[in-house]
Amino acid sequence: MADDQIALGPGKVDLLEAINHTGSISRAAMGLGLSYRRAWTLVDTMNRCFKSALVEGSAGGKQGGGAHLTPLGKQIAELYRAMEIRTDTAIQKEWKIIKRSLKPPE
Amino acid sequence: MADDQIALGPGKVDLLEAINHTGSISRAAMGLGLSYRRAWTLVDTMNRCFKSALVEGSAGGKQGGGAHLTPLGKQIAELYRAMEIRTDTAIQKEWKIIKRSLKPPE
Repeated sequence: MADDQIALGPGKVDLLEAINHTGSISRAAMGLGLSYRRAWTLVDTMNRCFKSALVEGSAGGKQGGGAHLTPLGKQIAELYRAMEIRTDTAIQKEWKIIKRSLKPPE
Repeated sequence: MADDQIALGPGKVDLLEAINHTGSISRAAMGLGLSYRRAWTLVDTMNRCFKSALVEGSAGGKQGGGAHLTPLGKQIAELYRAMEIRTDTAIQKEWKIIKRSLKPPE
């Protein structure tokens, strides 16, 4: 967190992964159904919240610049997914009991 | 979930616990800085999302009715807190690495 901004969450990690796969913020945004502006803002927030950038611009050229994850960006995305798996595993017992008590979706 | 309503979350569990401690939705709301209307709506959502109510009204009398958790309500609140502890424990290693990479709050 910096300035009450949320550094990381499921949507931001989806975006990191999409940038990693597509090599571009605009293609990543398109794939996730986000506006370029929204995706850029999310990237900017992450880059400002961490000690060093998670996403860097690639050199431009005729096609315009791409973007890629820094080593820190890749590490953070991987750690986040590892945390998701660990939490899913950790709460299985309790979550099963809660789920059984919920009404089925209408 | 029912009708896209969120059945449970940290705020709703705080409210369950406050109702359990105070014996009343209005006193619970006051303690949490919520309006009575907001607290009532949260309770209503929980009660409708689960197969049976988590919160029940107590008989009225001169002081107006109180409220209390049903056995299911108590169980759900306890399971939720148990899940929080389990997830905190499960992600410690990854979370420490991520935290070290974040800028300190300004």
